Amino acid sequence: MQQFGIGLAGMGNVGAGVFKHLTLNRALLRERLGYEMAVQRIAVRDLGRDRGVEVPSHLLTTNWRELLEDPAIQIVVELMGQKQESLDFILGAIERKKIVVTGNKALLAEHGKEIFEAAFSHKVPVFFEAAVGGGIPIIKAIREAFVANHIQSIHGIVNGTSNYILTRMTEAGLGFAEALQEAQAAGYAEADPALDVNGGDAAHKAIILASLAYGFWVPPEKVFVEGIEHLTANDICFARQLGYRIKLLAIIKAESGEIEVRVHPTLIPEKHVLASVNGVFNAMAVKGDIVGESLFYGRGAGQDATTSAVLSDLAEAADALVSPRRNLGFMPHGLYGTCKPMDQIISEYYLRLTVDDRPGVIAQIAGILGELQIGISSILQPEAAEGEIASLVLMIHRATNAQIAAALAKISALSCVKKAPRMIRVEHFS
Amino acid sequence: MQQFGIGLAGMGNVGAGVFKHLTLNRALLRERLGYEMAVQRIAVRDLGRDRGVEVPSHLLTTNWRELLEDPAIQIVVELMGQKQESLDFILGAIERKKIVVTGNKALLAEHGKEIFEAAFSHKVPVFFEAAVGGGIPIIKAIREAFVANHIQSIHGIVNGTSNYILTRMTEAGLGFAEALQEAQAAGYAEADPALDVNGGDAAHKAIILASLAYGFWVPPEKVFVEGIEHLTANDICFARQLGYRIKLLAIIKAESGEIEVRVHPTLIPEKHVLASVNGVFNAMAVKGDIVGESLFYGRGAGQDATTSAVLSDLAEAADALVSPRRNLGFMPHGLYGTCKPMDQIISEYYLRLTVDDRPGVIAQIAGILGELQIGISSILQPEAAEGEIASLVLMIHRATNAQIAAALAKISALSCVKKAPRMIRVEHFS
Repeated sequence: MQQFGIGLAGMGNVGAGVFKHLTLNRALLRERLGYEMAVQRIAVRDLGRDRGVEVPSHLLTTNWRELLEDPAIQIVVELMGQKQESLDFILGAIERKKIVVTGNKALLAEHGKEIFEAAFSHKVPVFFEAAVGGGIPIIKAIREAFVANHIQSIHGIVNGTSNYILTRMTEAGLGFAEALQEAQAAGYAEADPALDVNGGDAAHKAIILASLAYGFWVPPEKVFVEGIEHLTANDICFARQLGYRIKLLAIIKAESGEIEVRVHPTLIPEKHVLASVNGVFNAMAVKGDIVGESLFYGRGAGQDATTSAVLSDLAEAADALVSPRRNLGFMPHGLYGTCKPMDQIISEYYLRLTVDDRPGVIAQIAGILGELQIGISSILQPEAAEGEIASLVLMIHRATNAQIAAALAKISALSCVKKAPRMIRVEHFS
Repeated sequence: MQQFGIGLAGMGNVGAGVFKHLTLNRALLRERLGYEMAVQRIAVRDLGRDRGVEVPSHLLTTNWRELLEDPAIQIVVELMGQKQESLDFILGAIERKKIVVTGNKALLAEHGKEIFEAAFSHKVPVFFEAAVGGGIPIIKAIREAFVANHIQSIHGIVNGTSNYILTRMTEAGLGFAEALQEAQAAGYAEADPALDVNGGDAAHKAIILASLAYGFWVPPEKVFVEGIEHLTANDICFARQLGYRIKLLAIIKAESGEIEVRVHPTLIPEKHVLASVNGVFNAMAVKGDIVGESLFYGRGAGQDATTSAVLSDLAEAADALVSPRRNLGFMPHGLYGTCKPMDQIISEYYLRLTVDDRPGVIAQIAGILGELQIGISSILQPEAAEGEIASLVLMIHRATNAQIAAALAKISALSCVKKAPRMIRVEHFS
């Protein structure tokens, strides 16, 4: 039986999972694939660390460059997580015709173009199922299952930490800080949760999904990103009264050759299936022009789910070694290519204003919106004692982000408006 | 650019969809695949029929054998739907080294072994994504994405017609006959709905999923099948009172090398995500030993969803022509191989008895169950006027099907039991 040698760079949770399950499920893989896969060498930072899995010490090295020079290695798995070293490692592997499997979403989002240019020029596949959605095969679905579809939209809950926090804020009425603490205590948020809660991690994943769907690497600076740090229990509560849940969504759409890619807190109708995706789970709703809407749901992170994705990429890699394939993991094409600027993107909006509770306030605000051709679809005025400062919630019809920004500037300047208005985008799934 | 010729056998809804979208999305397919695909010949039964899509008449023939002998055809798509002719066509194509794409679930369920033996001996792939779940890429997910996983279970809502009927029975309190009429009026059920409502269609899909997951073609006679024809609005209502929904589930599991495959109405907890899959939608929850649980959801039938699946198989086929692959669509292996007899399969149960409403009845029934070592987890006794005939609902702990059959025989014989007991299996998702 043919044998392939694997070089594992990085042995955190997922690296240890890959090593463990390659051993545990070896018989199964052999039967299903018809190949044998063996880890030849593992690059780690710290030789002595306990990884919860027994690794023969002769496999370990602290120098990842050794993996590149090892002729017994045909496939490398990059799980180092840094940027410059990971990039050097991946490019080095491609040059040496070693197939690359990586779960490094930040790297792909920022250097996808460069990595795949190298991949094309050396005809070496780069697989990255583990980069988005953990064990959910969303990369394979977009790349292969929906290959005949113009992808009309992808709506994804792609960051489990922020979804856990929002779930706890919704279910238990917690504030953001409290819910974050809970997530940290439960092991669902890191000591430094910035990238999870500020939308950065979700944006990396959005870039990867959009790039796959539309055939070009979306420049990160074209992606609008807003996190969940400024959400209040109030907003979540008002949204519920209006029949919505708030989720951190990655939204990807195409219309007449232009695409939009954005990540922000979003009100979604409580009846939509994404509204019921709670806790650390991920889900992506994909709409194609032939297939219609389909949805993928599962654990978006965690050692084992991500390990499963790396192993499926390893199987692809072994297959590709035996019969070289045309699709090297990403297929560039020229059908799209431009990103719509955020200003021109049309959305619906939830506005929460803090205003003097006196007659005429609504008329003033409605006047400003009317002048800017912005329609109001409903108004919610939670009760306040007379003469007190009150909340006023407006649901706004379709308008561009530029229009709503202009309206907010004018509204903020009103003397009856006591605090900076709070705006959250709303998504209906047409 | 390389061009592949396609022979289309059968031009019902899906065949017409394939022809239409190969034309409409031609530029996209060319860019994404790097190949050109052109339909060379189409076998139909009736040359004159209007198919809602313009087909050049020189492509049409009433003789499917012509497709086999046409040297310009490298890939055939079998959508004829019959059995003997479809089988002859597929085996004929394999012999002539033409790659086969089919959506014929009945044929695969009954002749999968034979078809793949021919495929292996001629080294010709047979792809069948369209056979299960319409546009949901469940075949690819099990075959490729979860390749490293021992599949622990698959729970699927795989028949849209019966799910629509159950949804209407649940939401509107309709009886089975009424809901079926509604489904027929809405175009969701055929004039002869037998295969949809009797579980036969779901069983074909269960066989295909189980065979893929466990590496051997499951003999149809080993699959327990019960349809939804005998469900009453009463049972659905009592189930709801107990916190359950009733779904027609395909259940596939493996334990210590043995597998179980069955299709029957099933009570599932209302909080499980499958309980919210309504109308004609399909969904499959797959549990793997590494990936954990993930769920796939979408349109399980209909022209366009199924067309999308056929087109993704065509893309695979074109790839496989350029670089022949080891996995020909199904990978047999010897890790499993036996099916557990239904008698030995353990489940939980819902029992509805029609009894005299007098003291001592529960004690008698509980006595019988106790003797057989069957535990009761709860009892629901909907109110009835004193002395009247009443319903008695029992929820039963884990027991084998043999145990419950023995209990039902004894209970039926009691003089206080007025009708044949109604038993429905219950599934908790551990």
